[in-house]
Amino acid sequence: MPTHRNNRAPVRVTGTEFASYTEYLVIRTKKRRELRHLTPELEAIVERSGVLDGFMLVSAMHITAAVFVNDNEGGLHEDIWEWLEKVAPFGPDYRHHRTGEDNGDAHLKSMLVHHEVTLPITKGGLDLGTWQEVFYAEFDGMREKRLIVKVSGLAG
Amino acid sequence: MPTHRNNRAPVRVTGTEFASYTEYLVIRTKKRRELRHLTPELEAIVERSGVLDGFMLVSAMHITAAVFVNDNEGGLHEDIWEWLEKVAPFGPDYRHHRTGEDNGDAHLKSMLVHHEVTLPITKGGLDLGTWQEVFYAEFDGMREKRLIVKVSGLAG
Amino acid sequence: MPTHRNNRAPVRVTGTEFASYTEYLVIRTKKRRELRHLTPELEAIVERSGVLDGFMLVSAMHITAAVFVNDNEGGLHEDIWEWLEKVAPFGPDYRHHRTGEDNGDAHLKSMLVHHEVTLPITKGGLDLGTWQEVFYAEFDGMREKRLIVKVSGLAG
Repeated sequence: MPTHRNNRAPVRVTGTEFASYTEYLVIRTKKRRELRHLTPELEAIVERSGVLDGFMLVSAMHITAAVFVNDNEGGLHEDIWEWLEKVAPFGPDYRHHRTGEDNGDAHLKSMLVHHEVTLPITKGGLDLGTWQEVFYAEFDGMREKRLIVKVSGLAG
Repeated sequence: MPTHRNNRAPVRVTGTEFASYTEYLVIRTKKRRELRHLTPELEAIVERSGVLDGFMLVSAMHITAAVFVNDNEGGLHEDIWEWLEKVAPFGPDYRHHRTGEDNGDAHLKSMLVHHEVTLPITKGGLDLGTWQEVFYAEFDGMREKRLIVKVSGLAG
Repeated sequence: MPTHRNNRAPVRVTGTEFASYTEYLVIRTKKRRELRHLTPELEAIVERSGVLDGFMLVSAMHITAAVFVNDNEGGLHEDIWEWLEKVAPFGPDYRHHRTGEDNGDAHLKSMLVHHEVTLPITKGGLDLGTWQEVFYAEFDGMREKRLIVKVSGLAG
């Protein structure tokens, strides 16, 4: 098998105290479509959770938003918006609009990007790669939207 | 940071009894392509699990199906099918069909929508937003397909 | 509700010993774009973890790669590459390239396929369907890339 172990050694921890910690974030964007960088706030939540090893679920509680991991680079973010608009375009012709809405594209963009990510927690911190940053993607904003952040795992 | 806490206060629970509960669902759709609303059955599984705080994984055990979270609105569901057909169309020209199959599009649709979701469990129930509903998407049905539903977390 | 239980009975396990085990894999592909079949190595990691029931997170630590579950069939893999190139094409015109990179397409492909999967562990093994296999998808390789594999759940 051509994969091999890194110098980073395997980590095994066991224990009898399990903790689960949940926070709800509220985001109200100024524009209808906007990215929000979440990593620093998520790192603070890991610390408040007391969880040393486990998982963090970051999940939009709305169906016109998404969460993803990628690069914090402005040019790429413009590319992402252009790409989302190409694959799931805004437009007047969605059947969903018979309900009075005009955000059919936002539902499809949410499916395309996915509404949640699961992140690893090791040694009390987010265990991400060098360039990995977590973003909230708002596709129909300018109103209060919620995110749930749940950390579960071994504590203390 | 422009996010702020909601009125919903953070929840931290710890304990020493951890439970993991698994059910396998079987779905046989009448049509080749069909959506199935899963939320009520998933809520019943949380209750049977006895898990009070943790995660639920809902994962198709097949590679021509998917699971997603979005709105339970019929017009939108038609939009979703039209969009899936545009981005990953049914057709005769897939190399996968050299195996005798005709479902190359179903594999691509499964990758596009994603075959699994992880849902948060808080206070013994699914912790979803107001409009979030869970769906199984069948892309090559009319035969028995399985889903695994696993709930893990603090119990009692 | 038209779903019904399979012959596979529900499984509930409880305990007080929780374990979390993490390995980091390094992959260096020979080609810029390449799929790598991970299932056998992941099964070995479950065994080394000692976890009997819980979840495994398999997550690329890079933003130009992805992890997915689908069929181990060569024709389908060619279809997947052709589809990825159609939906998120390689090209010179990404704004991200103003940074000196030429991999804008690889970031979009990573978002499309998703960078991580969560897999169920039951009775000490990966609980996958008959045809489900786990793949690493490299979109900008020929250099060392890392994956984190974390298994958490009940042990012993």
